[in-house]
Amino acid sequence: MQPLSQVRIVMIGTTHPGNIGAAARAMKNMGLTDLALVEPKVFPSDEAVARAAGAGDILDAARLCGTLEEAIADCERVIGASARLRSIRWPQLDPRECAALVTGSRAKTAILFGREHSGLSNEELERCHYLLHIPCNPEYSSLNVAAALQVVSYELFYASSAQAAAILTEVPSYATGEQMESFFGHLEEVLRDSRFLHESKHEASILRRLRRIFNRAHPEEAELHLLRGILSAVQRQLRAGG
Amino acid sequence: MQPLSQVRIVMIGTTHPGNIGAAARAMKNMGLTDLALVEPKVFPSDEAVARAAGAGDILDAARLCGTLEEAIADCERVIGASARLRSIRWPQLDPRECAALVTGSRAKTAILFGREHSGLSNEELERCHYLLHIPCNPEYSSLNVAAALQVVSYELFYASSAQAAAILTEVPSYATGEQMESFFGHLEEVLRDSRFLHESKHEASILRRLRRIFNRAHPEEAELHLLRGILSAVQRQLRAGG
Repeated sequence: MQPLSQVRIVMIGTTHPGNIGAAARAMKNMGLTDLALVEPKVFPSDEAVARAAGAGDILDAARLCGTLEEAIADCERVIGASARLRSIRWPQLDPRECAALVTGSRAKTAILFGREHSGLSNEELERCHYLLHIPCNPEYSSLNVAAALQVVSYELFYASSAQAAAILTEVPSYATGEQMESFFGHLEEVLRDSRFLHESKHEASILRRLRRIFNRAHPEEAELHLLRGILSAVQRQLRAGG
Repeated sequence: MQPLSQVRIVMIGTTHPGNIGAAARAMKNMGLTDLALVEPKVFPSDEAVARAAGAGDILDAARLCGTLEEAIADCERVIGASARLRSIRWPQLDPRECAALVTGSRAKTAILFGREHSGLSNEELERCHYLLHIPCNPEYSSLNVAAALQVVSYELFYASSAQAAAILTEVPSYATGEQMESFFGHLEEVLRDSRFLHESKHEASILRRLRRIFNRAHPEEAELHLLRGILSAVQRQLRAGG
């Protein structure tokens, strides 16, 4: 059994193929195997293969995705690596806390690493349940993306080794990314049916804030089912009455 | 005062100048400044400068040494990074133990990183008080030298930050217990208006589960205000249509 098989590394919009290769090497060193690449600038690439050294198999098996949604569709938990502490509205983890969380359950988890120069977009951050921040020199806080991935992978390996003998506690089955998207779509419909969104000029901002609230709640599958049931009941009544 | 000023990083016989640049960047990210280069193959180098990104000052200040002895002449403690667990004759540290040791005293400490392909020679190892080994996948244990340095530097920074006084971040203004109660009351009304609760025999259990979900989201006051706004809009429409 692969102890860290529940972890998917997602690199988004990576510009330099050397960084993809270095990331693959860092992953393999630390026992990670599942790499998804969302719109890399250059891939496949000889430079990536060279920097991967003996980790070419990770590159060969990497999934090339057109969108972030595709890369995380089956993931129950999404963690975004972010150089800046953007907002306290997301729970923040450092790599050690992230490793404790991830290795403490079998929930399929995606860890997102953004573009070399601009990191993750706000829209991408909206998909995250947690932000991951690597503590570093506040006067020079820009880690290379593969170096950041090395640190995070090292903490994952360290934690999983420490737990190797420990027994995993029973864990809930979280809703997947796809199920959450479907819920947010349904919620938006109800907000329109009830004319709540119609009343407001700030639709996008409202929808973003709602995403944050429900992502933070991190519903289990059964809980999401309950919430969907409420939306359906409200919608039925609204449409019957309207 | 530089909290990690007692640490010198010593790179020995580095072949690829890109690795020296990446090492400088990793060091600066983690608040390290003292770099010594023993017989690098190419230095200075444009590639090193490019990979260093904003850490060119570390390269400019790096000491170029002809021998290891020169690089560690003023050091009280020498730690050698080693991919393999060579011998029990040396005390072994992992990066976390190394960081605890180093940040626990002001002893001037050199940490040695060897050649990309062959690491440290036996003669160089003889100069070490400790060996430092990064835990990793036993089937693929060769870390890139700059990646190894990133992990070690991260642990040093982490340990030294933990020792510094913790600065509390600004905390959000969460909804009070009273506001949450008022919200749950309002939610229950809407669930009745929409006949969702009426459909079910399991009212109490449903309300408990909803409490769990929203308590977990731990809404700020402004977020609760948004949720209340939605409930009001739905209620208005339901009552107008019903």
